[in-house]
Amino acid sequence: MNSIWLAQPCAELNDTASAAALAHQGQLTKPPGALGRLEDLAVQLAAWQGVDRPDMSRVHISVFAADHGVADEGVSLFPQAVTSEMVRNFARGGAAISVLAKKLNATLEVINLGTVSVVEPLTNVRDERVAAGTKNFAQHAAMTISQRDAALHAGRNAALRAKQNDAQLFIGGDMGIANTTSASAIACALLQALPDQLAGPGTGLDSKGVEHKARVIEQSLALHCLHPDNPLEVLRCVGGFEIAGLAGAYVAAAQQGIPVFVDGFISSVAALVAVRINPNVRDWMLFAHTSAEPGHQRVLDALSAQPLLQLGMRLGEGSGSAVAVPLLQLACALHGSMATFAEAGVSEQD
Amino acid sequence: MNSIWLAQPCAELNDTASAAALAHQGQLTKPPGALGRLEDLAVQLAAWQGVDRPDMSRVHISVFAADHGVADEGVSLFPQAVTSEMVRNFARGGAAISVLAKKLNATLEVINLGTVSVVEPLTNVRDERVAAGTKNFAQHAAMTISQRDAALHAGRNAALRAKQNDAQLFIGGDMGIANTTSASAIACALLQALPDQLAGPGTGLDSKGVEHKARVIEQSLALHCLHPDNPLEVLRCVGGFEIAGLAGAYVAAAQQGIPVFVDGFISSVAALVAVRINPNVRDWMLFAHTSAEPGHQRVLDALSAQPLLQLGMRLGEGSGSAVAVPLLQLACALHGSMATFAEAGVSEQD
Repeated sequence: MNSIWLAQPCAELNDTASAAALAHQGQLTKPPGALGRLEDLAVQLAAWQGVDRPDMSRVHISVFAADHGVADEGVSLFPQAVTSEMVRNFARGGAAISVLAKKLNATLEVINLGTVSVVEPLTNVRDERVAAGTKNFAQHAAMTISQRDAALHAGRNAALRAKQNDAQLFIGGDMGIANTTSASAIACALLQALPDQLAGPGTGLDSKGVEHKARVIEQSLALHCLHPDNPLEVLRCVGGFEIAGLAGAYVAAAQQGIPVFVDGFISSVAALVAVRINPNVRDWMLFAHTSAEPGHQRVLDALSAQPLLQLGMRLGEGSGSAVAVPLLQLACALHGSMATFAEAGVSEQD
Repeated sequence: MNSIWLAQPCAELNDTASAAALAHQGQLTKPPGALGRLEDLAVQLAAWQGVDRPDMSRVHISVFAADHGVADEGVSLFPQAVTSEMVRNFARGGAAISVLAKKLNATLEVINLGTVSVVEPLTNVRDERVAAGTKNFAQHAAMTISQRDAALHAGRNAALRAKQNDAQLFIGGDMGIANTTSASAIACALLQALPDQLAGPGTGLDSKGVEHKARVIEQSLALHCLHPDNPLEVLRCVGGFEIAGLAGAYVAAAQQGIPVFVDGFISSVAALVAVRINPNVRDWMLFAHTSAEPGHQRVLDALSAQPLLQLGMRLGEGSGSAVAVPLLQLACALHGSMATFAEAGVSEQD
């Protein structure tokens, strides 16, 4: 398993389909532009799907779960056992993303890339543990090269499964106690930002906890001497298996021609890694929501991303993307089912 | 038909149910607050429905249509005939709100409160024409007292039909060429704002057109000498039948205990009228989206409203509210179906 595949070209956008979709939008019985971003979404989906009347009925959700050695530094309010416990909760239907996937009739799979303890076999959970969590990156590189590449590859396989299921949208989710610390460290390294600018409360740290988290990140970055132009090494030294899985999935989805609907802070950092590895991956990304995690806006800015929703969510699991899926579906319905001025006999502008 | 009913008390919120819902939220397998506004929505819906696990499956949409005499002043890009043509388009399923209602499995009715020309009988269109459009308020009061009260009453009847259908949400929509001019004039009078602060492009006026519209509003306000503490007289002099219908529907829905999901600029101005008539109506309002129409934010601020969506929509018809309905449904699903920490065996905070 190597990482050569990461540089392979992404699928191309279909400009003919998007031009046809744009022309169709102009004929629908409404003032031009009156549906705002829903119009842009329909045109963008047309470019991705290569049809002038896009559809959004087949949604694939892969939630990547893994533990983080840096949890030893006391950077999360929740015990590390929660990662495994939540994997079970995903499988049993009790987690937010499980409820949302069911309501959306979306495919949901969980990929265990490295919980500390083994999780018993569960329906819709794939045991692809790379290791029993990453190493504590405040003291060591989080993973080896081969571990990193294995996690990236596991993400690629998720995108290939989505392709096999003819998915029209790929949503990646994350679960991993302490993963906002890892994501913040990655973002600091790639954006050359200070930890105080990117570290946030995560699951609910108070200001003292956030300050401690920033110091842990600061010391870790000093230890690893990371370069912003080497995203793979940044990922290896301060990343997490689930973040690598997401990044690999995003690259592969773009290569397969499946748009990805990026969720919150962790997912956006994975998106940043993916785009730094292979810039054209950006063309296949849509951003669902702005997280309450304060560092998210900075990462979104770096990706020139304008998410659809601002609801103060900060759960991860792909939940923000899932919540925004109906907007895409309604954009498709409006685009595909509204009457044109000619069909409806409605007068156009004077 | 009089307007005495407008002052009757609104239904009361159920604080016991919302307290129970809030407690339940705290037990769900996620960090507290991680679902952001979706958590608040579930608790708010509990207060409205009087149950600790609210549901959002029965949505009633009433679109009020009417013509405006002030269209004679050249304040809209579209000819007045479009109002009637769109009534037909609503009925035949080709309009945005028709497509959305179908996707949401919502009840949709159209109430014709005063198109200039008679519209032939159509399924799901109620002919309740008060007059052949309002009078041009740049020269005369838009309507008589009895016309205003008839339009308010027609709105009330729509809310009563929603109640009869056991609706869990009332969405009011608007259709009426030149109705942003009327809505801007109402808002100027009630908020003591200048027309230049509230007049906007509507269906797509250029800056010269907006300037002309502001002057028409300015002259009309000078003609009518309106007082901000007399919302009914403001409505009579510069309002529209569909705006009166919406205001009446909002008051009656609050009296019947049905929450209203306020759409864009026109609907929010109607909401402002309703709240000025009967302040407790505000307790039953939820705001769907921030319109691209620039005056909307000012009206929202006056109502202390924080809409759910910011998608640059500006269509009316109730379309912004309809697009936001899935957020309410998903909030209910998460609240009602997620596992608690105890049920899932997930550890809580350290």
